Amino acid sequence: MTVSFTIKQADGASRTGIVTTAHGEIRTPAFMPVGTAATVKAMTPEAVVQTGADIILSNTYHLMLRPTAELIAKMGGLHKFMNWNNPILTDSGGFQVMSLSKLRKITEQGVVFRSHLDGSEYNLTPERSMEIQHLLGSDITMAFDECTPFPVSEGEAEKSMQLSMRWAQRSKDSFIKRDGYGLFGIVQGSVFPKLREQSADTLKQIGFDGYAVGGLAVGEGQELMFEVLDYTMPHLPTEHPRYLMGVGKPDDIIGAVLRGVDMFDCVIPTRAGRFARAYTDEGEKNIRNAKFAEDPRPLQENCPCPACTSYSRAYLHHLFRAEEMLGATLLTWHNLTFYQQLMQGLRDSILAQRVRQFADGFLLKYKGLQE
Amino acid sequence: MTVSFTIKQADGASRTGIVTTAHGEIRTPAFMPVGTAATVKAMTPEAVVQTGADIILSNTYHLMLRPTAELIAKMGGLHKFMNWNNPILTDSGGFQVMSLSKLRKITEQGVVFRSHLDGSEYNLTPERSMEIQHLLGSDITMAFDECTPFPVSEGEAEKSMQLSMRWAQRSKDSFIKRDGYGLFGIVQGSVFPKLREQSADTLKQIGFDGYAVGGLAVGEGQELMFEVLDYTMPHLPTEHPRYLMGVGKPDDIIGAVLRGVDMFDCVIPTRAGRFARAYTDEGEKNIRNAKFAEDPRPLQENCPCPACTSYSRAYLHHLFRAEEMLGATLLTWHNLTFYQQLMQGLRDSILAQRVRQFADGFLLKYKGLQE
Repeated sequence: MTVSFTIKQADGASRTGIVTTAHGEIRTPAFMPVGTAATVKAMTPEAVVQTGADIILSNTYHLMLRPTAELIAKMGGLHKFMNWNNPILTDSGGFQVMSLSKLRKITEQGVVFRSHLDGSEYNLTPERSMEIQHLLGSDITMAFDECTPFPVSEGEAEKSMQLSMRWAQRSKDSFIKRDGYGLFGIVQGSVFPKLREQSADTLKQIGFDGYAVGGLAVGEGQELMFEVLDYTMPHLPTEHPRYLMGVGKPDDIIGAVLRGVDMFDCVIPTRAGRFARAYTDEGEKNIRNAKFAEDPRPLQENCPCPACTSYSRAYLHHLFRAEEMLGATLLTWHNLTFYQQLMQGLRDSILAQRVRQFADGFLLKYKGLQE
Repeated sequence: MTVSFTIKQADGASRTGIVTTAHGEIRTPAFMPVGTAATVKAMTPEAVVQTGADIILSNTYHLMLRPTAELIAKMGGLHKFMNWNNPILTDSGGFQVMSLSKLRKITEQGVVFRSHLDGSEYNLTPERSMEIQHLLGSDITMAFDECTPFPVSEGEAEKSMQLSMRWAQRSKDSFIKRDGYGLFGIVQGSVFPKLREQSADTLKQIGFDGYAVGGLAVGEGQELMFEVLDYTMPHLPTEHPRYLMGVGKPDDIIGAVLRGVDMFDCVIPTRAGRFARAYTDEGEKNIRNAKFAEDPRPLQENCPCPACTSYSRAYLHHLFRAEEMLGATLLTWHNLTFYQQLMQGLRDSILAQRVRQFADGFLLKYKGLQE
């Protein structure tokens, strides 16, 4: 057994269930905080658990450069290294190579690139990506793919998708099976229905433990993203978890869950937290705004996070004005808690078969009072 | 009753006891972490409590500029504002005005200075300092004094000390007495025995709830500092707490406790933590040092802090290399824990009347293996 997925309840296209891995269970729909460099920025692992997260994502690209996968393996693997004893999903490195590194050369074999840290040259292939993720000890390994740029012509998108599919097969071939550890394939094909369908069919034929939708949240906008999900999701097997990579804002997540997505990751709640932006049930707030300077109220009523239970908006405002690190910690804590509360709301309402009502109610408050 | 002090045991000049304040008890000898801008940098208040700290220090100068004492009072006082429900000592602002602000004009009345933040002009007098500390709600208020520069001539030191003594009287006169809240006087006089004695005598005549030694840790070095303590401490009343301001490194603290000091504050453990410097029972370590890159051992054996119980030196090294905030948090956590463990060791060994042996044993290991 690799990783298993049990669906407890469906409601329309939405489902709630449990993914079981070597390091424990993931309640779906799930949001994975991003721990790029073996730490969820500004948070202790204990704090991340307290927000309600079952799983985090870490980045192959960053870790292969520093401190290297080999060093992490020598230290007992990523879980032990970063003191996170719950599931970890690692991406394949493909996306970051495209977005962060310099002097990329893409061949059939893989990608040659220069580190954004020191310019030294690296090789990343499907086989090497599998090896790195194995060394890290990821519960969920992602197949190595090329992230198709956006916008792109259909011809280019097809060429890129076909390369990713050959790399998906090589990823599968070199992935070392272990109990409780799984491999997910990634559907590409940009915004072209036929390509998305072909990609999904190819991946199903290869056979994966889960299916991700890649190449979205790259500037296409929510409407187009939902459109892609509308014609892509029906081609993904219902019995495996489906993961929408790099998404998103609360309303993106809600729309994707309504379309049958089970897993998400995004830097938004952590990055926003470090830059004074809070996600609340009344929409986004920039706590640096002068109107919060003397506001004695909690950031959000009824939020269980420490930023809301123990401090005023005035104090959070002060921390950012004074450039105190605790500000980033508390706002990250809040944002991650807000995201996890949203996921809990989605799970509960799917179980009660009223996810559409939950979504409508949430969005009405969230968007209605948007500042 | 203002604040009370009960000595449980003496051992030579050292004593261990309890200072009781409106917000709880302080076990002495005590180390007060510094929370300059209403936060102990990089730490949550819960984490500060976990290190073993009974009391923190906060800075009048910083808080009067931002967010202002009036705002903090409106938010329910400093304890509530920063979510610290244990004792707080505030300094008087005098030291920071001298070290941080610009365009100072010192008169009999007080100090006129410009904010280091925005250049705007402020007035600080003994009466205003008392008012600010009252607005903040400090358990222990410090008298307003002029921090005599170092080195200085005896004549200058005497003039400065006499001014501080007149300000001490005005501080006492304007301090608003409340149950559980106390006012400490500050002995000045630089490195001149006669001046220190005169200053101590004047303060005793005015009458304070505790007596601080000021004007040290300003570049005079440990030997001279201990010399000043040797001839100053005998002039301070034994029945009140004695506080050595701005000190220090672990060996400074040990030497001062052996000379009868009960309370300390210093930015060293917090500042060092943010700059990758760890205080351990084997001396100081710079965790950025390349030799720690693959070191699987904890920072310090038998240390109860999370940096030591949950992570390797290799991971801490990685966090600083990757400029991750968690590095500052974990090393601050460790350093504060190390300081509090030292204070606990001093308290226990005074109780057992073997403080000299404890000090010798600690320093042998600490200095013997200094890197």
